[in-house]
Amino acid sequence: MNRVPLEGKVLSENARVAAELRERFREHRLPVLNIISSPGSGKTTLLEKTLESFSPSERVAVLTGDLQTENDANRLKRYGFPVKQITTGGTCHLDARMIEKHIADWDLEKLDLLIIENVGNLVCPSSYDLGEAAKIVLLSVTEGEDKPLKYPSIFFKSELMVLTKTDLLPYVPFDVPAAIENARRVHAEMEVVKVSCLTGNGMHEWLTWLERRKHAFLAELAHLVG
Amino acid sequence: MNRVPLEGKVLSENARVAAELRERFREHRLPVLNIISSPGSGKTTLLEKTLESFSPSERVAVLTGDLQTENDANRLKRYGFPVKQITTGGTCHLDARMIEKHIADWDLEKLDLLIIENVGNLVCPSSYDLGEAAKIVLLSVTEGEDKPLKYPSIFFKSELMVLTKTDLLPYVPFDVPAAIENARRVHAEMEVVKVSCLTGNGMHEWLTWLERRKHAFLAELAHLVG
Repeated sequence: MNRVPLEGKVLSENARVAAELRERFREHRLPVLNIISSPGSGKTTLLEKTLESFSPSERVAVLTGDLQTENDANRLKRYGFPVKQITTGGTCHLDARMIEKHIADWDLEKLDLLIIENVGNLVCPSSYDLGEAAKIVLLSVTEGEDKPLKYPSIFFKSELMVLTKTDLLPYVPFDVPAAIENARRVHAEMEVVKVSCLTGNGMHEWLTWLERRKHAFLAELAHLVG
Repeated sequence: MNRVPLEGKVLSENARVAAELRERFREHRLPVLNIISSPGSGKTTLLEKTLESFSPSERVAVLTGDLQTENDANRLKRYGFPVKQITTGGTCHLDARMIEKHIADWDLEKLDLLIIENVGNLVCPSSYDLGEAAKIVLLSVTEGEDKPLKYPSIFFKSELMVLTKTDLLPYVPFDVPAAIENARRVHAEMEVVKVSCLTGNGMHEWLTWLERRKHAFLAELAHLVG
């Protein structure tokens, strides 16, 4: 049952493809975000509200992963931006090769933001680099504030924690300061945004974070080139 | 990136150990339940309420899996029954070898029920047989009714779907009949119990299901021996 050498091969091959992707994304000055959470934490809903808020001239595209169904892509396509579903079959995460394959016919030069919605899984996606500029983890307030301690890898690797479904706070025993403290015990620099997609509370903060992160990516590129 | 041959080896070794466990559980007339869900669907809370409802003479034990922390075992130990935490490190599921190791110093002859709370993950645990008599999947009403279609493997393999957090139904856009219909599209024989651990609604049905399942296990054994 020693999985390490087996997984090591898969992960190093993934790292190689992810490095190529990262290089391509930099060449095209394209910030890529990899959004990860448990099933049902509200990734797709957050993306719906995000796309809805964008003007039609926004140059954004979305890849959305699931084991089965095109449900999420169908939900997201309604906003008029390029969206592709990645159906993994049984696989519990997206890998770099899947990303490479699904962007093959997109002109990256025409995009200013690529958002990847990973498979709903708080564990495995954290091991697979997709060439992204940043990982974002969602945690809904129905899930319990100890999740960062129980699933530390993804919280350690994410720049931002989005606390979702905050409209449910009056009805659930969720301690927001404890959740933030737990996230920062795992990752001291963790940024936090609290959002309710139902009421719209916090959407402005989230969109501001997105905008700021795009600029930081471009600034970093200029520095690398400079 | 072809994971199939690599995973095949791991899974066939797991199947071998799981078959040995199943044989041991049968020898000891011990029904074993493997509870699986997303992180934060309420597995530990359901087990807390279940243990709380048992008389001290009940011969039940619990194994609870997480990547990190002893939080769940600490919550469950308060009820006075044998409880052990399985901390998997980075591993996204429990496997049969972990179960074998953690029950090594328990006298199975003195147990009438063993409940295994798997790692919070709706994908990977479904591939790892633990020698259990039945798998149970939890789905909280905050997660969305299309989860059985998106994560079909675990719903296909589970005998029972427990819809949890039903007290939140007034505040979330969750369609209970659609969720049940989706589960039964994947697994026509799926049994369903609706529970709120906060109000206690549905706990009686859940406990009745447990009791009935224990009897069915013993009846099946008698038939096998018979």
